[in-house]
Amino acid sequence: MSILITGVAGFIGCNLAKRLTNEGHIVLGVDNLSRGTMQNLALIQNTANFHFIKTDCANSRNLLEQTAPFHNKFPITEVWHLAANSDIPAGVSDARVDLQDTFMTTFSTLEVMKTLDIKVLAFASSSAVYGDHGNQSISETSGPLLPLSNYGAMKLASEAAISAAAESSLTKAFIYRFPNVIGVPATHGVLLDFVNKLKATPNRLNVLGDGTQQKAYLHVDDLLDGMLHIRRYATEKVAVYNLGADDLGVSVRDIAQSVIERVSPAADIVYGVEDRGWVGDVPKFHYQLDKLKKLGWTPKLDSTQAIARAIAEIVEQEFTRK
Amino acid sequence: MSILITGVAGFIGCNLAKRLTNEGHIVLGVDNLSRGTMQNLALIQNTANFHFIKTDCANSRNLLEQTAPFHNKFPITEVWHLAANSDIPAGVSDARVDLQDTFMTTFSTLEVMKTLDIKVLAFASSSAVYGDHGNQSISETSGPLLPLSNYGAMKLASEAAISAAAESSLTKAFIYRFPNVIGVPATHGVLLDFVNKLKATPNRLNVLGDGTQQKAYLHVDDLLDGMLHIRRYATEKVAVYNLGADDLGVSVRDIAQSVIERVSPAADIVYGVEDRGWVGDVPKFHYQLDKLKKLGWTPKLDSTQAIARAIAEIVEQEFTRK
Repeated sequence: MSILITGVAGFIGCNLAKRLTNEGHIVLGVDNLSRGTMQNLALIQNTANFHFIKTDCANSRNLLEQTAPFHNKFPITEVWHLAANSDIPAGVSDARVDLQDTFMTTFSTLEVMKTLDIKVLAFASSSAVYGDHGNQSISETSGPLLPLSNYGAMKLASEAAISAAAESSLTKAFIYRFPNVIGVPATHGVLLDFVNKLKATPNRLNVLGDGTQQKAYLHVDDLLDGMLHIRRYATEKVAVYNLGADDLGVSVRDIAQSVIERVSPAADIVYGVEDRGWVGDVPKFHYQLDKLKKLGWTPKLDSTQAIARAIAEIVEQEFTRK
Repeated sequence: MSILITGVAGFIGCNLAKRLTNEGHIVLGVDNLSRGTMQNLALIQNTANFHFIKTDCANSRNLLEQTAPFHNKFPITEVWHLAANSDIPAGVSDARVDLQDTFMTTFSTLEVMKTLDIKVLAFASSSAVYGDHGNQSISETSGPLLPLSNYGAMKLASEAAISAAAESSLTKAFIYRFPNVIGVPATHGVLLDFVNKLKATPNRLNVLGDGTQQKAYLHVDDLLDGMLHIRRYATEKVAVYNLGADDLGVSVRDIAQSVIERVSPAADIVYGVEDRGWVGDVPKFHYQLDKLKKLGWTPKLDSTQAIARAIAEIVEQEFTRK
């Protein structure tokens, strides 16, 4: 028996593959390598119980043809569906990006699961499904869900398709509403952005927006712990969980400060004037984690600790390994 | 200036076109005529301010090419997007039906609106976005949204895409969460189904499910009143409203009884054993209308009155007009 991970060559996918293979599972990873890279898989691609196929899972016929032979040998019993567009601004300027990479990947994965009779799906959704609820605290029962970005919209569309599939063909679905996740291999996000800007111009850090945006951050190791905890203990047929750090978050100003202290202490920080960085970027965000806490889990690191650790990891990635 | 209606040849579309042309608007209706019919448009197709184009609005290139010349003459200032699959069981057996007809119609309509710089969208969503909330009363702020059918899923996906579009290109979006709507021209639904079954076998009415399903019904005339009221008075940028009858609804048993009394009083009613008719059919449903009432609107007919009127209309449609 085996587990299929879609988007395995992305930031969270490769960490998940490492974790599941370490636990002894046979893992089949697929990725179209449009944003994910083989470099991300360097640490596990020689592991005996890890298998990789390059394929675009937005195309259900391809995905079926490519995975069926493996499935016949090591029956796939569950899918962790992580494949998605990870470039939110790209999806804002062209809605087809998230249609194809964030939604059609889900739709096609569900079709293949139905054909191969795979019954359990774990899905990487996003806090972006909620949209802007002002300073209100956001729980899994909050509504209406009015996402601001096409990325958030197509994550919500994916949740919806999964929910309907759970009524007909799936026996169990886990919907993880991810927060901002940090760690390595970093492929995008504010930390990598700041580190690379300072690498290019060590005396100056330009910050998109006025720096007052405040968000909670979860380290990827905590994220995986939380996902596996929910996978094990959640009892609902469609289990929807917010995942995040248990605090009110850290401002972009504080992050900028932490990065320059670590990378280039003499740099000047130059802020923009808007209170948000791009269309679909929600300025403030209070994420309620009561449901997950009730299930017996809290992250080991708070947002500040997660950022400190991730900055160290990203600095190592960007300055040492090149 | 003009208004575009998609799905104009469907049950609600043709009623809306009649209403808007009566109010003096220039209306361009589009429909792919896969489920809608020219017969539905019989009453308005000779109206001077009504124009019809046969096109599939799931294909944005087609839709753009077909509507742009009209738009250049009578600039379209708003779109009422009603095109969708109306056959819920068909979408349960093949998810591509609702992907294409319920979701891609929305996605493509949004693309065309962006290209033609049309800023206002009114969208026919559905109570099916909520899924099964047991006996809980369902308001616009209820969550999580876990639709049971692909129809409900693709309506929710459409809401999500519209919400994201409102952040970038639209100035205003109205999301109407429709209840069960009845009236003529009836194209599907329990009333037409019962009338036609009795027409075929006047001595016997087979009912899917045990008949205890209870739902509220809104007459299409009330629905249009409510939609236009919201269009006029709602102030939010993305205005989400439940629309429905202000009562707890009528059971399928009561409906069956009313139909046989009208059509074939001596018929026997034979019930199934399940508490729901098909996958995705939510057995009970308490729809909260406080938000709409606060905006100053309530329907003229309750569910029982709406059913009585619609049965009379459908009997006339099925027995007289043929």
